[in-house]
Amino acid sequence: MVHLRIALAQTNPTVGDLTGNAAKLVEWTRRAADRGAHLVVFPEMFLTGYPVEDLVLRTSFVEASIAALEELAVRLAEEGLGEIAVVAGYVGRAGLAPRVGQPKGAPLDAAALLHRGAVVARTAKHHLPNYGVFDEYRYFVRGDRLPIFRLNGADVAIAVCEDLWQEGGPVSVVAQAGAGLLVVPNASPYEKDKGDVRLDLVARRAREAGCALAYVNQVGGQDELIFDGDSVVVGPDGAPVARAARFVEELLVADVEVPAAGQDAPQGPSAFDAHDGTTITVERATLGEVRPREAPPAPPRLADRLDEPAEVYSALVLGVRDYVAKNGFRSVILGLSGGIDSALTATIAADAIGPERVHVVLMPSRHSSEHSVSDARDLVERQGLQDRLVPIEGIVNAFEKEIQLSGLSAENLQARVRGMLLMSLSNEHGHLVLTTGNKSELATGYSTLYGDSAGGYAPIKDVPKTTVWRLSRWRNEQRGAGDFLHDFGGPPIPPNSIEKEPSAELRPGQRDIDSLPAYDLLDRLLDDYVERDMGAAELIAAGHDAELVARVIRLVDVAEYKRRQYPPGPKITPKNFGRDRRLPITNRWRETTA
Amino acid sequence: MVHLRIALAQTNPTVGDLTGNAAKLVEWTRRAADRGAHLVVFPEMFLTGYPVEDLVLRTSFVEASIAALEELAVRLAEEGLGEIAVVAGYVGRAGLAPRVGQPKGAPLDAAALLHRGAVVARTAKHHLPNYGVFDEYRYFVRGDRLPIFRLNGADVAIAVCEDLWQEGGPVSVVAQAGAGLLVVPNASPYEKDKGDVRLDLVARRAREAGCALAYVNQVGGQDELIFDGDSVVVGPDGAPVARAARFVEELLVADVEVPAAGQDAPQGPSAFDAHDGTTITVERATLGEVRPREAPPAPPRLADRLDEPAEVYSALVLGVRDYVAKNGFRSVILGLSGGIDSALTATIAADAIGPERVHVVLMPSRHSSEHSVSDARDLVERQGLQDRLVPIEGIVNAFEKEIQLSGLSAENLQARVRGMLLMSLSNEHGHLVLTTGNKSELATGYSTLYGDSAGGYAPIKDVPKTTVWRLSRWRNEQRGAGDFLHDFGGPPIPPNSIEKEPSAELRPGQRDIDSLPAYDLLDRLLDDYVERDMGAAELIAAGHDAELVARVIRLVDVAEYKRRQYPPGPKITPKNFGRDRRLPITNRWRETTA
Repeated sequence: MVHLRIALAQTNPTVGDLTGNAAKLVEWTRRAADRGAHLVVFPEMFLTGYPVEDLVLRTSFVEASIAALEELAVRLAEEGLGEIAVVAGYVGRAGLAPRVGQPKGAPLDAAALLHRGAVVARTAKHHLPNYGVFDEYRYFVRGDRLPIFRLNGADVAIAVCEDLWQEGGPVSVVAQAGAGLLVVPNASPYEKDKGDVRLDLVARRAREAGCALAYVNQVGGQDELIFDGDSVVVGPDGAPVARAARFVEELLVADVEVPAAGQDAPQGPSAFDAHDGTTITVERATLGEVRPREAPPAPPRLADRLDEPAEVYSALVLGVRDYVAKNGFRSVILGLSGGIDSALTATIAADAIGPERVHVVLMPSRHSSEHSVSDARDLVERQGLQDRLVPIEGIVNAFEKEIQLSGLSAENLQARVRGMLLMSLSNEHGHLVLTTGNKSELATGYSTLYGDSAGGYAPIKDVPKTTVWRLSRWRNEQRGAGDFLHDFGGPPIPPNSIEKEPSAELRPGQRDIDSLPAYDLLDRLLDDYVERDMGAAELIAAGHDAELVARVIRLVDVAEYKRRQYPPGPKITPKNFGRDRRLPITNRWRETTA
Repeated sequence: MVHLRIALAQTNPTVGDLTGNAAKLVEWTRRAADRGAHLVVFPEMFLTGYPVEDLVLRTSFVEASIAALEELAVRLAEEGLGEIAVVAGYVGRAGLAPRVGQPKGAPLDAAALLHRGAVVARTAKHHLPNYGVFDEYRYFVRGDRLPIFRLNGADVAIAVCEDLWQEGGPVSVVAQAGAGLLVVPNASPYEKDKGDVRLDLVARRAREAGCALAYVNQVGGQDELIFDGDSVVVGPDGAPVARAARFVEELLVADVEVPAAGQDAPQGPSAFDAHDGTTITVERATLGEVRPREAPPAPPRLADRLDEPAEVYSALVLGVRDYVAKNGFRSVILGLSGGIDSALTATIAADAIGPERVHVVLMPSRHSSEHSVSDARDLVERQGLQDRLVPIEGIVNAFEKEIQLSGLSAENLQARVRGMLLMSLSNEHGHLVLTTGNKSELATGYSTLYGDSAGGYAPIKDVPKTTVWRLSRWRNEQRGAGDFLHDFGGPPIPPNSIEKEPSAELRPGQRDIDSLPAYDLLDRLLDDYVERDMGAAELIAAGHDAELVARVIRLVDVAEYKRRQYPPGPKITPKNFGRDRRLPITNRWRETTA
């Protein structure tokens, strides 16, 4: 057996920030070397960040990624880090002749092995996911290799992310080709309950490949996505050897014993049937003997699991924290109504960036209850937020002097005046506007376009109302500080905001229950209709009340219909008419330094 | 030779409206039968409309599509239309076992042959486009057949849309399998200058297949897309035999002489190498002799080509007309500033739905010039629009009494007050709000979020400023009425709106030129940067001034960055966190009839 110490760099890159990500790679490689690792593995496309979206279709960006990788190999050696083997993801290029429908420049979701100043091996993802949040047939062409490198006498294979999830392809070839360790860089976004699915998959693939498996995942918020980390090393039997924490950066170091490769193993490339209609070429390399730095043995590490509210709450806080930081904001602003949605949103924001950077505006109208202001003030005092009071009655009157509005139009006007006040204060002072709508409201259209939905980030848009209450109670029970918890010295949320009946307070005596079904019924039904895409017949067969099904489907479909009628404001499309370029994430990458 | 009369039903379906589309199919089949056609061909996915987006992932929708097709076969026969052969697109299902990443239910972008009450043949698109506006790896699994049916002794093959654009696949098999005619249903969106590319492609494929080719395209606006028709029949030499007009529904009828199929041609399925790593199965069927109704010969028909302004203007008018109609609106509303962008937008709207359904609001501020109101009034009088004057000064003052704003924040406030007034009037009276921004402004971020960008449809968002002027002059030169031109009795646009210097009038003496480069330089550069995705070095090499390149790239990237910071308001995502369902187009399809 060969003893290998492997380090998994569960890290948080920023999309497009080639310079910043490269600096982080050097820093974490140094930490891994100092821990005595033979090998350090970074997440998928670490050098560019993930997902890069349409930026990958710009030639100059792909060239910059490839150049950055090559510079990195040299720089690591120059900085005394040439000895440790480094596996890092980047964007490469396949060099195919252009054809209709192939992504411009034929980019690759690539990974490379760097050692002693050189790029020793390159590979690319073979299975391109194109479901859920993934659009990779739009962006990449598929890889067709499995690199296996010999490290101190043991064979180590490299495969990328989705290749683990699909049958066939490079991972299916590992057992035949023979390897003692399979390392897999990933950028796998958080979903509720995904952790166990992922671990089961990793364990199964390790058993199939007959070798240890090191799974390294990205961590951090990137636009709408949250990556949760949860990196893991399993043995050939699938049993976890080491597992990292979730939602935080961590260098997970594990000592593994790997079988020595047979002396007679073939050294040249060889082709294998990949059992998916394609052929995978195994490319072999041998590194000069790696002599790691002296360091104590890696302590056993199996991070504690989080219970469900802690998991969800951590994800929400991380999402806000990284959205603010990666988009160059220093503070946030939101409207406080005294209700539970804005109270929880403010608490998440204060936990994410500190209460001194959370600005709240109380905007009572003629229909606001007395407790709307008093509950909001209670929250401000509990948390030490930056508050401001702006009554909206004078502005609403000025509008109503010019145009006559009734019913829903008049209700919407109030929500829009509030949205405009927040946007104006954002423009004037540079705060990011957070919206406070929950998933139950948004799904059923209980929200005003350009009103309460106006803002840059919506922390609880994926949280059903019943979970809003659950998380609020859970948060009030936590004591002290942590990665995702600020120490407010007491429960941060006014109990009255949790207990009182929900109301939008846009007309006298209004209650949510006048417009929506009871939230416990509604949330169960939304889960089946929105998450699982069940049709009416299926919903009724699953036990939902037929009348409720008809009513809620109507609410959701009309809300989606209206969102379609009023899409996000004009987008820029290349090709005149007809073709839609997604907006590339250019916030950390510029064509010019001007 | 066999004489066949083929009818191409260049028609305008509505996404999700299975009932309405089926009724239209019956009506147009009757028209084709009355013209004496043996065969009528409808566009791709005609029965469901195209694109259906995430609606296709709902099981009940796919089931409804399949059921509707089968009912249609019966209904055609019952209505005395069983004799004519009908090729129609719909959504089918492949019946594959579920696996990770495969679209739920394995839907097919299918087409079927209906004859004498039965579904005689089924096929599905093999090449799934996943670039530009197409996301078909998300929605469909690929077909693997080429149906060839014998019609009065001639062999007719069916292939779908993208299969024509890609090398290999079903179309590459036609020559070997032998067919006298290839019919191709399409849903191919309009792009400037695409017409000739398409005709060249059709001609080339006809020559490769060695047979006549009938290309049927959808027509009409559907959300952001515009389909332009331009259906065509070419001979085996690629020369056009008949060609339909663009942007209008048309039944294109052509008489073609097709070689009789050999008596010894194989009748069972047979497998062919598709030259793309897959195998295509040819499935043969023979129809009983089709006896068309008596009718005079099809007159020769090669529609006149449109010159460029007429082409673009027709597309714009069709886009507005169908967006209004398909989304259930009866009228539109927009702000008139006296400038050329809102003047052209109003004119397009009046040409699309008639001036009596176009509501305009003049919203002068303290910074508005005198001519802003007088030019707007001139436009109203030339066209007979429904106008209203709402000065915004009182409302702006009410805001500024509550919060202090300076510079850009104060300018944005004015734009937002106008946006809110339009949205409020829309809510109160049911008009669709049109925005008036052009592509040059939007690309460079010369626009206010929730202000002038607030609205449901943006008619000129794809039109650069220099083209806005060109189209305005062109429109003023047109006389009389047409499919896309209302007869206003004179030039509809005030010459002063065309000639005067552009200004946003949000501060005293403001001019566009103070913030933006001259529009002729800007538009040429935007074309290379936005449409062609050229990087800075490429732009300079292409002859653009280096300083201008740096400035414009910065403007565009910052604008895109800001659009990313403030995305469209919260979306509904299934899977809690991490996964994004696109909003399905449910405006014409409901789970319930409630």
